[in-house]
Amino acid sequence: MNFIEGGITAPQGFKAAGVAAGIRKKEKKDVAIVYSQVPAQAAAVYTINKFKAAPLKVTAEHLADGIAQAMVINSGIANACMGQQGMESAKEMAEITAQVLNIKVDDVVVASTGLIGAPLPMDRLEQGIKEAASKLSTKGGSCAAEAIMTTDLVKKEVAVQLELGEKQITIGAMAKGSGMIHPNMATMLGFITTDADVSAECLQKSLKTAVETSFNMISVDGDTSTNDMVVIMANGIAGNPQITLDNEYYVQFQAALTEICVILAKMIAQDGEGATKLIEVEVSGALSLEDARKAARTICSSSLVKSAIFGEDANWGRIITALGYSGAEVEPEKVDVYIGDLMMAENGTGLSFDEDKAGQILAQKEVIIKVDLKLGEFEAKAWGCDLSYDYVRINADYRT
Amino acid sequence: MNFIEGGITAPQGFKAAGVAAGIRKKEKKDVAIVYSQVPAQAAAVYTINKFKAAPLKVTAEHLADGIAQAMVINSGIANACMGQQGMESAKEMAEITAQVLNIKVDDVVVASTGLIGAPLPMDRLEQGIKEAASKLSTKGGSCAAEAIMTTDLVKKEVAVQLELGEKQITIGAMAKGSGMIHPNMATMLGFITTDADVSAECLQKSLKTAVETSFNMISVDGDTSTNDMVVIMANGIAGNPQITLDNEYYVQFQAALTEICVILAKMIAQDGEGATKLIEVEVSGALSLEDARKAARTICSSSLVKSAIFGEDANWGRIITALGYSGAEVEPEKVDVYIGDLMMAENGTGLSFDEDKAGQILAQKEVIIKVDLKLGEFEAKAWGCDLSYDYVRINADYRT
Repeated sequence: MNFIEGGITAPQGFKAAGVAAGIRKKEKKDVAIVYSQVPAQAAAVYTINKFKAAPLKVTAEHLADGIAQAMVINSGIANACMGQQGMESAKEMAEITAQVLNIKVDDVVVASTGLIGAPLPMDRLEQGIKEAASKLSTKGGSCAAEAIMTTDLVKKEVAVQLELGEKQITIGAMAKGSGMIHPNMATMLGFITTDADVSAECLQKSLKTAVETSFNMISVDGDTSTNDMVVIMANGIAGNPQITLDNEYYVQFQAALTEICVILAKMIAQDGEGATKLIEVEVSGALSLEDARKAARTICSSSLVKSAIFGEDANWGRIITALGYSGAEVEPEKVDVYIGDLMMAENGTGLSFDEDKAGQILAQKEVIIKVDLKLGEFEAKAWGCDLSYDYVRINADYRT
Repeated sequence: MNFIEGGITAPQGFKAAGVAAGIRKKEKKDVAIVYSQVPAQAAAVYTINKFKAAPLKVTAEHLADGIAQAMVINSGIANACMGQQGMESAKEMAEITAQVLNIKVDDVVVASTGLIGAPLPMDRLEQGIKEAASKLSTKGGSCAAEAIMTTDLVKKEVAVQLELGEKQITIGAMAKGSGMIHPNMATMLGFITTDADVSAECLQKSLKTAVETSFNMISVDGDTSTNDMVVIMANGIAGNPQITLDNEYYVQFQAALTEICVILAKMIAQDGEGATKLIEVEVSGALSLEDARKAARTICSSSLVKSAIFGEDANWGRIITALGYSGAEVEPEKVDVYIGDLMMAENGTGLSFDEDKAGQILAQKEVIIKVDLKLGEFEAKAWGCDLSYDYVRINADYRT
């Protein structure tokens, strides 16, 4: 597996564009289209929030047949909690896109991110979609990745190539997400393209598996949004022997897809609103995978842990505290806790440790917290970021 | 029911003191004793964190017979995650206290709050306990309430009187808590005294009921600590006909006890680390009490809701978002949302509202958020505070 330059237009047969339609603010790109030259196999994973935004509902309808040819995405307005008007706007986005691209309306995936409870400005959006369609290019992935950003500071894209059955296949992806990020699909959008030929069943399963160990293991602030989804389109142009659940190619494809999703997930955590550090929490020795995940995510989500890491304070008691209310099976007198490679607590009891060394570890841009439950064989990683003054500043006046 | 001046020494037969023993920092009172002139019926509710600090374990042992005569509390060091040494220190605290007060060691309740994973300085603590014992007074409640504070800015005490069977009974209480505050007993301690005669069974049940609608419904930062408990002692000196689960006095006593706990809980939320506003969330129309509580607590705990309230931004989409991931049964197209009396969303759809009026409501020191699920008859209230720059400042360098 080789990493290559680019993102969603790295695979063969995909074009994209991103333009500024004036939805979010002047000059900022806010409308993106991703287009496959042939209809592609497609699959998606959606937010678990009970308030599902209109674009998710429209996308789910359009993907009922497992086929898509284009994705249209806007940032600035989430088109959530807008009732009937929201559904009509989401459908109209798909219709306009289908019309200008001359494809079937139910082959269009629709996504929105931004402010909840405000109407989409359909005239500006229509202009944006038309402009984006006219600018579609095999080099347009980067502009599209810019157009889906909201409070993101960093554009997030990645691409890999691998050999499958003597054919080279490429997977490209872009994502957005910075705040309202939490396990189980928070305000994050992920779009993945591949020129591989993948069976419908295999595509859905491998996407779900990849999301579970990547996007569902990051947390910025514990909030799970109404709008999130990850979509994958596989157009088969690479001509590889089809990847199915029962052949040897599946394992390779799954590994590459998971790797791509983990990279994007970490980029999102690192770009968390106001973040100054990436936090990686590794929990091992759990009795079950679910326990390992719960524990890792809870530690990653604790405001007190996050504040301590921001302050570069080796307050491991807060790690133990979060573990204790995570719901994971724990025997307090067995737990070991490390910050970096420095052991802070052994068998649930605090050790005296070298404060200078702890300070050096905490001064890094990436801080690794390790917890060994010493109960079983399961492990999991979660990613998050510290909690800084800037998180509060950004979120105190998001609407203004 | 009349509110009166004072706290835990307001009921007859109780003395208390609070002194500075140098555990937390010079001059700050950090050791408190509460003493009843006769052994009292006692009950307690403990943290749900799996890492239970040593003092909780010792207290649970001592309350096995339902009797206590004194409580000894220190702030500064939590005596949590200290293994065998921690258990020995907690027992020693009880032994020293029993000795100087000349009471039975298993009639002593022990509590600690502060930094996790550090040892109690037993020599200074011993001096503090002896000094506090020598200063016990019927006017000492206020000093005790000061001594249990950590990052609290405000001392928290309250007392009420009511008539039961032609006898006047008094209930007094004090609490501490400011950070690491979350549903299900976070880093908060509550101590309640009463001169009422209450049966053992009734005392335990009424305390549990009171805690469920008060301390378990507040959240500052979503962290549930290792050390929290609420203890009540009822010494019977008022000479009232005994309150039991099957007589008329129970309802009155329960109402007073719940009211006291709600007042202290709101004081804790309002004094949340860095808080500038108290947030009250009222959820009505839920299918079950558990759903109403879940929804209210989740909205109250959302960092995004809290940041928006700090910024006085009527970003009601975040309220809907938190509701949507709360786990409560919700039909999105039925939900109404209000900030104060201003309706923001009806039947799950945003309304255009008067931004000036919203601004006025959000400028108040207390902000009420109301959500009507319109599904059933259950309702609940939760309390929290906004998320400010100061929360981050306080928690970035708690240890230093």
